[in-house]
Amino acid sequence: MKTQHTAGASSFSFPEPVYVESAASIVSKKEGEGPLAGYFDRICPDPMFGTKTWEGAESALQRETASLAIQKAGYSPKDIRMVLAGDLLAQTTASSFGAAGLDIPFYGLYGACSTMGEALALGAMCVSGGFGKHVACVTSSHFASAEKEFRFPLGYGNQRPFSATWTVTGSGAVILGDRPPALSVDNAMRTDAGCVALSGITTGRLVDFGFKDSLNMGACMAPAACDTIFQNLQDFHRSPGDYDQILTGDLGVIGTKILLDLLRKKGIDLSENHSDCGLLIFNCQSQDTHSGGSGCGCSAVVLASYILPKIASGEWKRVLFVPTGALLSKVSFNEGESIPGIAHGVVLEHREAEE
Amino acid sequence: MKTQHTAGASSFSFPEPVYVESAASIVSKKEGEGPLAGYFDRICPDPMFGTKTWEGAESALQRETASLAIQKAGYSPKDIRMVLAGDLLAQTTASSFGAAGLDIPFYGLYGACSTMGEALALGAMCVSGGFGKHVACVTSSHFASAEKEFRFPLGYGNQRPFSATWTVTGSGAVILGDRPPALSVDNAMRTDAGCVALSGITTGRLVDFGFKDSLNMGACMAPAACDTIFQNLQDFHRSPGDYDQILTGDLGVIGTKILLDLLRKKGIDLSENHSDCGLLIFNCQSQDTHSGGSGCGCSAVVLASYILPKIASGEWKRVLFVPTGALLSKVSFNEGESIPGIAHGVVLEHREAEE
Repeated sequence: MKTQHTAGASSFSFPEPVYVESAASIVSKKEGEGPLAGYFDRICPDPMFGTKTWEGAESALQRETASLAIQKAGYSPKDIRMVLAGDLLAQTTASSFGAAGLDIPFYGLYGACSTMGEALALGAMCVSGGFGKHVACVTSSHFASAEKEFRFPLGYGNQRPFSATWTVTGSGAVILGDRPPALSVDNAMRTDAGCVALSGITTGRLVDFGFKDSLNMGACMAPAACDTIFQNLQDFHRSPGDYDQILTGDLGVIGTKILLDLLRKKGIDLSENHSDCGLLIFNCQSQDTHSGGSGCGCSAVVLASYILPKIASGEWKRVLFVPTGALLSKVSFNEGESIPGIAHGVVLEHREAEE
Repeated sequence: MKTQHTAGASSFSFPEPVYVESAASIVSKKEGEGPLAGYFDRICPDPMFGTKTWEGAESALQRETASLAIQKAGYSPKDIRMVLAGDLLAQTTASSFGAAGLDIPFYGLYGACSTMGEALALGAMCVSGGFGKHVACVTSSHFASAEKEFRFPLGYGNQRPFSATWTVTGSGAVILGDRPPALSVDNAMRTDAGCVALSGITTGRLVDFGFKDSLNMGACMAPAACDTIFQNLQDFHRSPGDYDQILTGDLGVIGTKILLDLLRKKGIDLSENHSDCGLLIFNCQSQDTHSGGSGCGCSAVVLASYILPKIASGEWKRVLFVPTGALLSKVSFNEGESIPGIAHGVVLEHREAEE
C-alpha cells in the first residue's frame, strides 16, 4: 500500500518540500505603469512583442518568459524535464506556439485564470514523485488576444462596465526543483535568509452559482475562491492567521467584496490578511482598469515578481496563493450557459538556508 | 536527494505499478456501426445526448462516461481524489461543463487528440506520488462540435478531402489506482488471468514539420508520433518487438503511411505490430470516413473498449499507447501558422493476478 500524502478532502502535502528554483515575469506598457512596475523583470513597451498578430505576441512573450526563468535558475532548456503551460486562448495556442516551442517535453493545461495554480500543483507532484529534477510552470495572457477571444476585437471599441476586469498582458514562469537554488545575484529566489518551498496544495472543485455575466468575472469566481480557501483551512487545520497573506488571483474590487462576505458567513474573517493580485497590479482608479487586473498572466506575474521574493527574503513566512478561474468560452456564453468558477490553492513557505 | 524514476531524455517508469481500476466508453451512432461496435459500453443513437446544443451534448456524454467508469470500479464520486479531463473545444468547455461537474477536485488539460495520454501520465504520477488512491482520466470529442470549432458548422455542407479524418463522437474514462481491481462481472479490467498496469510514460515534445493543412491532420501528427515512439524505444532500451502492439491515436490512412516511412528512415520497422485507433474504429471505405477517425474521444474509446481488455485478459502482454494531437486553433490556422503535433506515450502491461 502506497503511503498517502493527502490531507482532508481536497489537499495534499509534500513529504519533502518542493523548492522554487527561479521565477520570471515579463509584462507590457500598462502593467509597467502600475504599482508593481519596479518588481517585474522586463517591461516591454511594444504590445506586439515584435510579431504581427496578438496571438503571436502572446506566444513570443510566453516563450521569452520561460527562457528567462530557465536562465535565472542557471539551466538550459535541456536541463528542464517538463514544461506545464497554459493560457486563455482557444486550444491554448499561446502555449502551443510559446513555451511548447522550447523542445522540452510538454503538457498543456487549461484552468482559465487559475492555470498557474494548476501548473504549480501538477509540477510539484512531478518533482515530489521523482519524475523530474527541474520542471517549468508557465502561463500567459494578453489584453488584446483575450478581448478578441472572449468578447469583441479591440477595433469595435465596445464599452466596459465597471464590473469588468482588465486582462493583464504578461507572462509568469516558475522553475520547481528538488533542491533550494544556490545564491546568485540574478536570482531573487535565494537570499541570505533562505528560499521558497512549496509545501501543500488544495485542488479546486468547480463551483457554479449560476452567474451569466462575462463582464463580471469576479462575481463568477468568488464562490470558488471561498470554497478552496475554506477547504484549505479545514484540510490543514489552520485559521487565516496561520498565513501571513492569502492572495487570490484576480477577483478584483467586486469579487473581493463577495469573497469576504461569503467567508464571513462561514465564520471566517479574511479582512486582515487578504490581497488580490488583480488589485495589486493596477491602480484601478487612475489606470481606468475598472474592477482590476485579470487573466492567467495576472496572478502569474504578481507571484513571480512580488509574492515569491517576499517569501524568499523571509518577510512572509507562509502564504496561500489562490489563483481563480472563470470557466467559459464565447460559445458557452452565447448559448446562455452559466459561468462556473474554479480556484486552486498553493501553500508557499519560507525555508531558512541550510548551506 | 530525491530518487529519480526518470529514464533517458523524456521518459519515466513507476517504482510500483499504477493500476487501471476500470475503464468506460460511450459513443454515438456512427461509431456503433463500425468494427468495434461490440466492444463499447454504450452506443447512444441520439447525437444530442438529450441536450439542445452540440457542446451540451459533448458535456453530457463526458459526464456520463466518467460516472460509468467510477461506478464500474465500485466507487462513488467522493472516492475519486481528482479528475484530469480535457476535450477539443475552446477553453475545454466540454470538460468544464462535463466531468468537472462531478464535484470532484479537477484539473483541466489540453493536448488536442493526445489528451488521454496526457491525462494518464499526470494521473499516474499523482497515484504513484501518493497524492490520491483513485484518480479519473477523462476525454471526449464530438463530430459536430469539433467541425464547428475547427472548420465549418455542419449546416454549411462543406466538402471534405480524402485526407480529412472524421471526429469520433465518444468519450473514454479510465480510473487509475494504487491496487489492482477486484474480480467483478461488470469490470473487464480484472480477469482470472490478471489486470492492467501502467508501467512507464514518454512525454511528448512539440514537433513542427511546417504543415498547414487542417484537413490533413494525420500528416501534421505523424512526425510527433515518430519522435515519441523513437524516444520511448531509446529511453527504455527496447525494440518494437518488445511490444505486442504499438497503437497510435488517430493518424488515419495518410498519417500511418508517413509514420511508418519516417521510422523506417531511422532504421525501425513498425509494420508488424502497429495499429492506429483511427483506423480501428471505422471501416473507412464503407463508412465514408475518408482517412479514419480522430478526436480526443477516438483513442480514448478505443483504449477503454478494445485495448485495455486485451491486456487485462493477457492476450497482449505489453502495449505502447501513443495518442497523437495536432496543436492548432481556427485563429492560428487562419493567421497562416503551421500545425505542430505532439504525441504522448503510455506503456501498459499485463500483470498476473496475485489474489
